[in-house]
Amino acid sequence: MPDRNNRLLYKIDSPDDIKKLSPDELVQYCDELRDFIVTELAENPGHLGSSLGALELGVALQYVYNTPNDKVVWDVGHQAYAHKIITGRRDKFCTNRKLGGLSGFPSIKESDYDSFGVGHSSTSISAALGIAIGEKLNNQQHKVVAVIGDGALSGGLAYEGLNNAGVEKTDLLVILNDNRMSIDKNVGAMKEYLLNITTSGKYNRFKNDVWKSLADYPRIRRWFQKLSNVVKLGILQQSNLFESLNFRYFGPIDGNDVTYLVKVLKDLNSIPGPKLLHILTVKGNGFNPAIKDQTKWHAPGKFDPDTGELECNCGEDHLPPKLQEVFGHTIVELAEKNPKIVGITPAMPTGCSLDIMMEKMPERTFDVGIAEGHAVTFSAGLATQGIIPFCNIYSSFMQRAYDNVIHDVALQNLDVVFCLDRSGLVGEDGATHQGVFDIAAFRSVPNVIVSSPMDESELRNLMYTAQQGGCGAFVIRYPKTRALSKNWETPFTTLPIGKGRVLKEGENLAILSFGFIGNNAREAIEKAEKEGISVAHYDMRFAKPLDHELLHEAGKKFKNIITIEDGVINGGFGSAVLEFMNDKNYRTSVHMVGVPDKFIPHGTIKELQHICGMDSEGILKKIKEIS
Amino acid sequence: MPDRNNRLLYKIDSPDDIKKLSPDELVQYCDELRDFIVTELAENPGHLGSSLGALELGVALQYVYNTPNDKVVWDVGHQAYAHKIITGRRDKFCTNRKLGGLSGFPSIKESDYDSFGVGHSSTSISAALGIAIGEKLNNQQHKVVAVIGDGALSGGLAYEGLNNAGVEKTDLLVILNDNRMSIDKNVGAMKEYLLNITTSGKYNRFKNDVWKSLADYPRIRRWFQKLSNVVKLGILQQSNLFESLNFRYFGPIDGNDVTYLVKVLKDLNSIPGPKLLHILTVKGNGFNPAIKDQTKWHAPGKFDPDTGELECNCGEDHLPPKLQEVFGHTIVELAEKNPKIVGITPAMPTGCSLDIMMEKMPERTFDVGIAEGHAVTFSAGLATQGIIPFCNIYSSFMQRAYDNVIHDVALQNLDVVFCLDRSGLVGEDGATHQGVFDIAAFRSVPNVIVSSPMDESELRNLMYTAQQGGCGAFVIRYPKTRALSKNWETPFTTLPIGKGRVLKEGENLAILSFGFIGNNAREAIEKAEKEGISVAHYDMRFAKPLDHELLHEAGKKFKNIITIEDGVINGGFGSAVLEFMNDKNYRTSVHMVGVPDKFIPHGTIKELQHICGMDSEGILKKIKEIS
Repeated sequence: MPDRNNRLLYKIDSPDDIKKLSPDELVQYCDELRDFIVTELAENPGHLGSSLGALELGVALQYVYNTPNDKVVWDVGHQAYAHKIITGRRDKFCTNRKLGGLSGFPSIKESDYDSFGVGHSSTSISAALGIAIGEKLNNQQHKVVAVIGDGALSGGLAYEGLNNAGVEKTDLLVILNDNRMSIDKNVGAMKEYLLNITTSGKYNRFKNDVWKSLADYPRIRRWFQKLSNVVKLGILQQSNLFESLNFRYFGPIDGNDVTYLVKVLKDLNSIPGPKLLHILTVKGNGFNPAIKDQTKWHAPGKFDPDTGELECNCGEDHLPPKLQEVFGHTIVELAEKNPKIVGITPAMPTGCSLDIMMEKMPERTFDVGIAEGHAVTFSAGLATQGIIPFCNIYSSFMQRAYDNVIHDVALQNLDVVFCLDRSGLVGEDGATHQGVFDIAAFRSVPNVIVSSPMDESELRNLMYTAQQGGCGAFVIRYPKTRALSKNWETPFTTLPIGKGRVLKEGENLAILSFGFIGNNAREAIEKAEKEGISVAHYDMRFAKPLDHELLHEAGKKFKNIITIEDGVINGGFGSAVLEFMNDKNYRTSVHMVGVPDKFIPHGTIKELQHICGMDSEGILKKIKEIS
Repeated sequence: MPDRNNRLLYKIDSPDDIKKLSPDELVQYCDELRDFIVTELAENPGHLGSSLGALELGVALQYVYNTPNDKVVWDVGHQAYAHKIITGRRDKFCTNRKLGGLSGFPSIKESDYDSFGVGHSSTSISAALGIAIGEKLNNQQHKVVAVIGDGALSGGLAYEGLNNAGVEKTDLLVILNDNRMSIDKNVGAMKEYLLNITTSGKYNRFKNDVWKSLADYPRIRRWFQKLSNVVKLGILQQSNLFESLNFRYFGPIDGNDVTYLVKVLKDLNSIPGPKLLHILTVKGNGFNPAIKDQTKWHAPGKFDPDTGELECNCGEDHLPPKLQEVFGHTIVELAEKNPKIVGITPAMPTGCSLDIMMEKMPERTFDVGIAEGHAVTFSAGLATQGIIPFCNIYSSFMQRAYDNVIHDVALQNLDVVFCLDRSGLVGEDGATHQGVFDIAAFRSVPNVIVSSPMDESELRNLMYTAQQGGCGAFVIRYPKTRALSKNWETPFTTLPIGKGRVLKEGENLAILSFGFIGNNAREAIEKAEKEGISVAHYDMRFAKPLDHELLHEAGKKFKNIITIEDGVINGGFGSAVLEFMNDKNYRTSVHMVGVPDKFIPHGTIKELQHICGMDSEGILKKIKEIS
């Protein structure tokens, strides 16, 4: 590695420093920044592909705009590593996604340069419009830019933002960062449309050519601008989807050419009204292995920065599979026997392992794009026809479809199976991604079954039970973790709805656990037993309906019970147990272990469970306190 | 009124009967149907304007399609009265929106002809696509039609549906029923776009002219179709927003011309792939008063069917104003003093009385269209700039923005005031509109204040308190009801966050009420006192944070408390109180009054409160049971 002092990278401590660079230096800086990101992520895993793709954009934006007074809103935000490094966070970047370190996403608490916190998709246009109008109301005139990926553009919220921004008189600039990918390949009609514009858009090429050729003639350009405004009212109005929504469309241009990007951004500064700049970028740009397999390199884990070899998982061959893989193989197994089963994912086939079904049964697997609300209502439509949809969504993204579950599924009592992946604390993705609200949210909705498996065999059996139909909305929530055993291919058994199981009898108190977190309880109980405390353990399986028989037993026998769930305590599973005890006049104290009433930041799952007192140590402590 | 037996209306008992009508009879039937709807609604109020506008469409669809095998999905559904009457529900139509009677919206439980239940906006395309693909998977070939209004098209879910449907190979027909209105005037860039197509769309006129002129030459028409498919791949691809999304666009045509509508629908039957038919209809068509003031006649209440005179509200002059009006005047009063306040509504200015602010301060009031998610994220963007947004949404529609509240507001701890109108049981709109989940949903989210006023003065003071800022997400939920007094213009007082008030001391037990429903408790308590039961009454004001001081007092003093809330019991306010009592080791039994764990249908608010045991009678009964 060359001497640190000779490198531009270490001379840039803030956007002010960037503005002093010459065009050539800007290119050099991008190269150094790319090396830095690759080297850092090789050691400390993160979102590589999209961050490399948006690197030049991150640099160009800071070069052209006067941030943080001018505001840049990144959509999703996992592509904003360059942005973070330029805006004073280079030396902390090694703490990215670690407990107490930088967040993997922009966060208004972390830096004034992060204009809006993010993590979920498709929020940028709405937020940026709010900022732009806020600026106006405050009599300020700072520039406001939203950067949104083509994947995020499939989310309805992005369209709602465009639809509103198109009639508000602000100078909002939306940059469409088009790399044809979400985590997986991007899908949907919009994707095809963008491809079409890119490959055949005569109108745009014409417009851009004129625009470029007029660069040295500002007066003529202003005239052209006026003309183009007039023309827009006529024939050309309908010539572009974005112009249909009152956005002036520019592009597509090469978004990995930092010099040209700077020029275009400067040009656009003088154009009033809502504008959309379409840039084409390459996910993984500048790092060949990441370009070649973009899905794998979305968040590749550790790797060798020189060879691009991913860290060998050989050691993991002897580990049990991920729960996600168990899900992926099990749905195929079930679908082979039950022709009514289909799989639905809002743009997460790989993350959820629904790609296994997608490959084997493409006609029965639907990737609907980043569109959780649609995924659920679409599932409801399928269910009216007797199809059994397995709608497979990250728990935190399911928050997007809360009303669809209530209004389209539960109210009509349709048989839709919701496989909520990444339920509970998810670790490094942090506060935006913790899947901790689902139990509380769904247990208050009529007709919804809320279940969670304690191991892979229960996961399979819950899936097996749910696909038999007739149950209405059937939530199966499970965390991002490994199965307990390599021998996960257990035979299927129907699990009675609303029935738990007694794992262990005990004398002093009982632990009622819900889901995989019950394994932490099991460990704690073993330790407690060694210290002479006898603890019963019930695996409840269902937070709704609750197993009344088991609860009566617990209520009669124990003065104290501990409930454990991988979700918020307020209104969650423990709260449901408590409601039962109160309702049936048991004087049992219910001690609830779970996520407290605050947003939990990033860290490893272990660290976060420890903070929340949900690891075996914390549970043991609770057992001792009580007994 | 002419003899019942001579009228076509009474000869049509099902869609099969309609198919026997001649073209002239079809027109006559529409006229009779219109008279029937007007006469019925004059007596038994309902959604008049949109139902008259979509009347011919409802008839034409049943004439052309073989329902219920062919499926028609109505978006929102309040425009589907004609559909209901034709499909066997004429004689029950007098029970519309009444307890035990017909629902005001399509409902799969009510009729096989209602392919999908509805009430909220923008679900039809997603649901219809699910149905269409379900048909395919089942090897069926029935036609599937979604009918969506231009207002509903501003919802992101509609776009997500279009985006997905554009790449699925189904023959889905989307009918865009364009009357330029939601309840209020429609807004947004899409609206302007539709207006543009309608007034200047040369391409469409050309295409339609060709299409019509080829009516008698089926072979040439097929050839034209093929040609048009080829052309579509080229220049014309980008010529229309819907065609950009792979929908073949037809229209606009007169949607109140039943004869022509039938012809076009038949023609479209032979065209494969996703199609969009744009029809222009007039809200209130055929009934002049309703055409003239479309907002007022959206749901006009009782009126004289001959003169169109709305039932005199003279008797109501002496009644207190609606809580909605108190809200509307109060926000203006506050905004006049605090320049940071803005008002935001997703297409509900009149329903929520934000129209009062809109008129006085148009530059500080934002109608963002039917787009709840955007309304919230847009508010969050505004809040980053120090603006205090009052985001004013029906409680049940707020379900659409659940993630936006968590991810964009609460997590960033931004000062957004959520005024949740129509919280609690809403009455005649029924199950889809009951605003009963908000307490349970939001009390489990960190950083969210959940408050509810017991009277208009508290509403004003909560608004006054919230606009001072620094509180983060501040939910104020209030029902559809009248204020308690005409003297609502009380001076403002800051209410300490998380503090309730003791309305009355008592000996035997305490009632802890949350919100307006506390007035039922007050009545019950008065009656109980007369029977010698002494009941304390605390108006808690905040479900989160709870008033610990008051709760300690209640926990120490009472063996039994009753909690009362206008929302679901599971996980709600009572559950929060119980969690406190359990946590602090009080052995107090908490008896929860609220909405049980089932969907509550339509009826008057009084009737529904009675069913849920939330009226004074039910509360009194509960008091007596306990004491």
